[in-house]
Amino acid sequence: MTAVVSKHLEGLQGKAAILIEALPYIRRLAGKTVVIKVGGEIVDDADRANSLAEDLLLMQRVGIRVILCHGGGPQINRLMEHNNKEAEFVDGLRVTDADTLELTAMALLGVVNRSLVALLNQQDNHSIGLSGVDGGLFRVSAGDPELGFVGKIDEVYPRVVLDLIDQGYIPVIAPLGLDAQSQTYNINADTAAAALAGALGAEKLIVLTNVAGLYESIEDANSFISEIDATKLEALLDSGILRQGIVPKARAVLEAVEAGVSCAHILDGRLRHAVLLEIFTSEGVGTMVTL
Amino acid sequence: MTAVVSKHLEGLQGKAAILIEALPYIRRLAGKTVVIKVGGEIVDDADRANSLAEDLLLMQRVGIRVILCHGGGPQINRLMEHNNKEAEFVDGLRVTDADTLELTAMALLGVVNRSLVALLNQQDNHSIGLSGVDGGLFRVSAGDPELGFVGKIDEVYPRVVLDLIDQGYIPVIAPLGLDAQSQTYNINADTAAAALAGALGAEKLIVLTNVAGLYESIEDANSFISEIDATKLEALLDSGILRQGIVPKARAVLEAVEAGVSCAHILDGRLRHAVLLEIFTSEGVGTMVTL
Amino acid sequence: MTAVVSKHLEGLQGKAAILIEALPYIRRLAGKTVVIKVGGEIVDDADRANSLAEDLLLMQRVGIRVILCHGGGPQINRLMEHNNKEAEFVDGLRVTDADTLELTAMALLGVVNRSLVALLNQQDNHSIGLSGVDGGLFRVSAGDPELGFVGKIDEVYPRVVLDLIDQGYIPVIAPLGLDAQSQTYNINADTAAAALAGALGAEKLIVLTNVAGLYESIEDANSFISEIDATKLEALLDSGILRQGIVPKARAVLEAVEAGVSCAHILDGRLRHAVLLEIFTSEGVGTMVTL
Amino acid sequence: MTAVVSKHLEGLQGKAAILIEALPYIRRLAGKTVVIKVGGEIVDDADRANSLAEDLLLMQRVGIRVILCHGGGPQINRLMEHNNKEAEFVDGLRVTDADTLELTAMALLGVVNRSLVALLNQQDNHSIGLSGVDGGLFRVSAGDPELGFVGKIDEVYPRVVLDLIDQGYIPVIAPLGLDAQSQTYNINADTAAAALAGALGAEKLIVLTNVAGLYESIEDANSFISEIDATKLEALLDSGILRQGIVPKARAVLEAVEAGVSCAHILDGRLRHAVLLEIFTSEGVGTMVTL
Amino acid sequence: MTAVVSKHLEGLQGKAAILIEALPYIRRLAGKTVVIKVGGEIVDDADRANSLAEDLLLMQRVGIRVILCHGGGPQINRLMEHNNKEAEFVDGLRVTDADTLELTAMALLGVVNRSLVALLNQQDNHSIGLSGVDGGLFRVSAGDPELGFVGKIDEVYPRVVLDLIDQGYIPVIAPLGLDAQSQTYNINADTAAAALAGALGAEKLIVLTNVAGLYESIEDANSFISEIDATKLEALLDSGILRQGIVPKARAVLEAVEAGVSCAHILDGRLRHAVLLEIFTSEGVGTMVTL
Amino acid sequence: MTAVVSKHLEGLQGKAAILIEALPYIRRLAGKTVVIKVGGEIVDDADRANSLAEDLLLMQRVGIRVILCHGGGPQINRLMEHNNKEAEFVDGLRVTDADTLELTAMALLGVVNRSLVALLNQQDNHSIGLSGVDGGLFRVSAGDPELGFVGKIDEVYPRVVLDLIDQGYIPVIAPLGLDAQSQTYNINADTAAAALAGALGAEKLIVLTNVAGLYESIEDANSFISEIDATKLEALLDSGILRQGIVPKARAVLEAVEAGVSCAHILDGRLRHAVLLEIFTSEGVGTMVTL
Repeated sequence: MTAVVSKHLEGLQGKAAILIEALPYIRRLAGKTVVIKVGGEIVDDADRANSLAEDLLLMQRVGIRVILCHGGGPQINRLMEHNNKEAEFVDGLRVTDADTLELTAMALLGVVNRSLVALLNQQDNHSIGLSGVDGGLFRVSAGDPELGFVGKIDEVYPRVVLDLIDQGYIPVIAPLGLDAQSQTYNINADTAAAALAGALGAEKLIVLTNVAGLYESIEDANSFISEIDATKLEALLDSGILRQGIVPKARAVLEAVEAGVSCAHILDGRLRHAVLLEIFTSEGVGTMVTL
Repeated sequence: MTAVVSKHLEGLQGKAAILIEALPYIRRLAGKTVVIKVGGEIVDDADRANSLAEDLLLMQRVGIRVILCHGGGPQINRLMEHNNKEAEFVDGLRVTDADTLELTAMALLGVVNRSLVALLNQQDNHSIGLSGVDGGLFRVSAGDPELGFVGKIDEVYPRVVLDLIDQGYIPVIAPLGLDAQSQTYNINADTAAAALAGALGAEKLIVLTNVAGLYESIEDANSFISEIDATKLEALLDSGILRQGIVPKARAVLEAVEAGVSCAHILDGRLRHAVLLEIFTSEGVGTMVTL
Repeated sequence: MTAVVSKHLEGLQGKAAILIEALPYIRRLAGKTVVIKVGGEIVDDADRANSLAEDLLLMQRVGIRVILCHGGGPQINRLMEHNNKEAEFVDGLRVTDADTLELTAMALLGVVNRSLVALLNQQDNHSIGLSGVDGGLFRVSAGDPELGFVGKIDEVYPRVVLDLIDQGYIPVIAPLGLDAQSQTYNINADTAAAALAGALGAEKLIVLTNVAGLYESIEDANSFISEIDATKLEALLDSGILRQGIVPKARAVLEAVEAGVSCAHILDGRLRHAVLLEIFTSEGVGTMVTL
Repeated sequence: MTAVVSKHLEGLQGKAAILIEALPYIRRLAGKTVVIKVGGEIVDDADRANSLAEDLLLMQRVGIRVILCHGGGPQINRLMEHNNKEAEFVDGLRVTDADTLELTAMALLGVVNRSLVALLNQQDNHSIGLSGVDGGLFRVSAGDPELGFVGKIDEVYPRVVLDLIDQGYIPVIAPLGLDAQSQTYNINADTAAAALAGALGAEKLIVLTNVAGLYESIEDANSFISEIDATKLEALLDSGILRQGIVPKARAVLEAVEAGVSCAHILDGRLRHAVLLEIFTSEGVGTMVTL
Repeated sequence: MTAVVSKHLEGLQGKAAILIEALPYIRRLAGKTVVIKVGGEIVDDADRANSLAEDLLLMQRVGIRVILCHGGGPQINRLMEHNNKEAEFVDGLRVTDADTLELTAMALLGVVNRSLVALLNQQDNHSIGLSGVDGGLFRVSAGDPELGFVGKIDEVYPRVVLDLIDQGYIPVIAPLGLDAQSQTYNINADTAAAALAGALGAEKLIVLTNVAGLYESIEDANSFISEIDATKLEALLDSGILRQGIVPKARAVLEAVEAGVSCAHILDGRLRHAVLLEIFTSEGVGTMVTL
Repeated sequence: MTAVVSKHLEGLQGKAAILIEALPYIRRLAGKTVVIKVGGEIVDDADRANSLAEDLLLMQRVGIRVILCHGGGPQINRLMEHNNKEAEFVDGLRVTDADTLELTAMALLGVVNRSLVALLNQQDNHSIGLSGVDGGLFRVSAGDPELGFVGKIDEVYPRVVLDLIDQGYIPVIAPLGLDAQSQTYNINADTAAAALAGALGAEKLIVLTNVAGLYESIEDANSFISEIDATKLEALLDSGILRQGIVPKARAVLEAVEAGVSCAHILDGRLRHAVLLEIFTSEGVGTMVTL
């Protein structure tokens, strides 16, 4: 056998090995529900968006029940700027008056949700965009009055999502909800994803962010946490040493795990195919949180 | 029996008679599909919007498969104004450059669609908002290059709508579509409603507008047309005597009837409960078009 | 706008309002079971019979599971007269020897049941006549020996009724039953309706009679009872002040409510569309009994 | 081995052989429809009635779809006598004025149908009595005006019978029908059974009568016909040599076969278990008619 | 009536009586599961094999869920002889080294199982051969090390058998199993049948053997036991008076009854149609064991 | 970023790329049927057998309907040798007298089929072994009398295979069949696989062999054929230049393609994961035959 052929065969066997490596993960997750949360910035980066879309479609194809939840921070900010409206935050939550709510809904539904659905429907017709307004998915009430139309989720009514997954669709969910008078509210996207994952009894919640995961200490790159349980994460949150931006994400995955999600992950969304690697390989990317 | 009691009983019998009058219509339409098209202006008029919502919910309750299609003219115009963008029309169709498309999608999805869904979900959780982007409902291609991102519907893929109706939802549909590259396009709302009604083999398409219906002659209020067949309507369209604004609606109902919809109606949307009266009573309101 | 048109539009809005008034009732009762009991006299009054048929068909069309139970007093009496057989009663129950039983079965099945089914099948084919003999619906044993073949219901086997409703039929039920030796027995029709309503977990039992409902005092027309609970009705029955004829009906609705029927009504069957008005409007007609 | 034991074993093998003999017949008829027609006289003979009930229940148990159609001649005659009404016939069909119709319905439904259902429900709850009034089974129009309310079947609407068989019931059918105005009519029972068998695409129609079957010649007991095809039966009917009473039965089986029933039988109903023997053994009892 | 005819009719009535005698047994067993165990010797006796096949097919036709379990002693012995391998037994269980296991699997699957399936598929295509290897039916672990590859059943995973019965097949089961490393093991056939009957919640386990059943005393032919409960059978087994060969069968039926099988039978497989007679007649053949 | 991390990330992206490469193949084959044929030698090579098992399990997991057909040449030969029986072939087909048939069945069912099923059931319980005897899968008649019990397939009755796949099993099929008298026959394994693939309307038939595929010329390693259509393959077969051993395989894939299988492959079974690479990557391994 020539060296070239032998090299080629070796390459083939390597390919096969990677496919076969996925088998136990496929077996374990088939029929299970995985909720993925992304920020709005993903639709501004075609490359990342495409790689995420490929990950989700592959997951669906092997029998995983996939739901994509999204935020829309950059898009809302841009729209407010265009409209000369100043963005204001309290504890990381957007103060939402009536105008801001309108702009938020437009950015979430008209830009982010629609773009993600279009991307996923490039080859199949399997994706459907929803918000918590549709099918009464998120029933909310007003939270902190200072925040205006920022809703606290009172009840998740997941039937519409279950119906769509049962029929083979990938639901893409924008974080809006209705109160008892059918008034629309803005919801924090991480919280919405966690609440939905909990209500669906999801196997996994994967929160994509722009850091590698959690660290024991901000200064020490070697203090990266691959795995942590709920009790320790709670202590970490209480200790106040987590980076500001990661706090709501950490709190959301904690809530999800406490609500019955088997494990939750904070992954680096900048890593292409981060979700796929987490789901189908033995490589640990990011931080995993379990009960 | 006192006169008061007798008067009361008479009133009761009147009520009963009206309910019973609905029976043959319910029997005829149960299990059939009815597509209703409204303009965006309805969400600016709470009273009309509520009366429409009640009509749709009652129709659904008696077993009719209801779909609501909507436009969003006023909302798009307002948003363009706010953004200092001039609205431009060619033959009644909005010239849609990339910015206009973005604004259109935001107005349709973030304002009109969401508001209609919220309204219908006030008491139940039965309504779901979609656009032609979801589930690949409308596949389009670019039409007149002068118009930009105004799509011509190439294919309606109604599975997502059928799935949702089968499970008891009322789909609310915004007129957007995707081309083969997953680029979003704006679609004329009357055309979209007609194409969907045709693809679903709907029993009825009801187009709500702000006139009483069609007239043989603009000047003559007595020339109102209660019923007209497709051939005569075509002639009327060719003759050029129809009021400008009504032409696209007339053309849409004509297309629907030619695509197999049993009958199509142009009704006065300003009349409260116009849809209900058309569906459940022997009163003729508006113009009916049949093959 | 001319006064005539305006008057017409007002009339239309009135119609719409009455239809819309029915919506919450339809929503609440869809999928629920309602048992209606009528006496045999209804088949002697074409007008009342037709109005009842319309009520039942409308109820069925909006998704209510409708069952009609009937008696046959006048028809049995007439048949006994023709056959020179004296009718004899003990405590309001017909003494039933073998010949009387035969005549009872003939009157119930050959006249009343068949006529009601024919009436309901005038436009659709949705009604089916049964007695407690069919599908073993009512299993009885001999009650008071003095009464002969008057059965006490030991077991209701509702499968046949459920099967038929599930397939969209309106069962019409005659009050006969079988004992363990397959001997036919006569059953009091009010008791049979109450037992069936209880076994089906019906939402409502409606007993049509020829008075307006229950009164606190026979002499006082102002003592009419719109609503009463089971405890008070029991006291009223014990007090002995109820009109003789109404006692078995009062007892039947009491039993139904105690067996789990949500509410039971005694309505004036002479009022046209009494059932419809009770079911679909806010008007209270008759006496309602709840637990 | 003793002679006694040996005798006993021989008996056992005989039993087994008879059961095994039934296997190919069970295999062939499982899932097929068999319509049996009996006269009203059967309910006057407990022994014959019981043996027929056993036959039908066994047939049902092995997966045959069984329907029992009945007449009621003796019962109608007795009832007319009691009511001093003279029975009158034209060409073997009962002249049916309004009173006769009432008496006919009472005899068929109140006596014959109820008794047969009670008999079949002695051990299970699987039988349900119907007439052509129920579920609109037989839609008729007036036939010969001289005959009054004797209906000619215009349409068989077999859904109700199919629904009941699908759910495991044995329908017992009385020969009444409705015209377009929901007026009840009497129908010849043999004709009704044949029409139903045809509409159901039955495998077999079995008409029980009080003779052994058809004979080539009335005088010659050796001219018994075991098997005959439709063409020859037609000729036999035309020849006029058949015994008067057998003519309507012969005509009915002929119609059934022409309507697609695979084979029809005229059996001697006086022979106990005649149906069972015909169905499950290689013995030919009675006359078989095929296309 | 001539004596010949009368004799013939009497014969017919006898046939009918035997068929009717089966009715209550059919009613009682329809939808229930019956497991039959035969030894391998049956495939060496075409007559017995055919009669068993007829019994099973008739049982299946009347709605009984039938499973056939088999051994293969004679076939294994013959194969070992051909291969000059001495059969060795410890307490009636075959010592199974790797070669013996291979020969056992070949005899069971290649000869006995295949032959039984072929026999049952002679007229229909309803039979399917399995072993405990298929669908992971029997999961075993090594038992007594002295015995080699003789497995102790740890778990029965009956899904594959249930799936096949639900679709109308008759599974034929060979007594092999897999351990956690997917190594094949031999299993005692009586034990396998009992374990399967228990796991399926079977109504009956019927073990065919070559004696009439159990006796109180080996010497006394009059001490035959028609019926015995589990406690007494346990005592009998402990007493040691049972014939050597019958002990494993007695133990298996005891285990089955203790595992929830309603009743278990030891029948004489040399009696043709023994299963049929046990199932469908009032004749007691063999010994019945109940809890 | 350090070089090590960067190297690691590159590796991860490479893994992801290979998984994503599989997506279009998964999408195209999901729900489609793929029949794989292996020779008996695979069970003698644990490594190859394991790699094949992994391939099949991965295929099944992503929604492909997988069937494994096998031969048993080496096992049959060994068993014949042990039994001092000379193997004899005519045109590559084994002359099969009664003894040879018995040995063939034992080798196929007792050794090859059982081993493959055990292997596939190591982690799940999803595999079931069958032969053409089960469920009447292959109905055959005697072919060339000189060959003895070598069957020609007359009819494939695929219901049993379809039933099992529908329920999530992987059927493993041995090449035996039954004639009308339920006599077992040996069938050529390549022919059996091709006939089954045709009857199932399979998307692909993959025949694993011990050469790389087809060559235009035996002497010229560069004349390898990657793709060939049916017409050319027929010509090649007629030309007689194909290597002896490959002829029956070539003929089988040709038959499969002519029977409607979309494409058929001859692959080198010695290449580990050959099936996986063919199915899920863009690499062409082996020869592909299309219509």
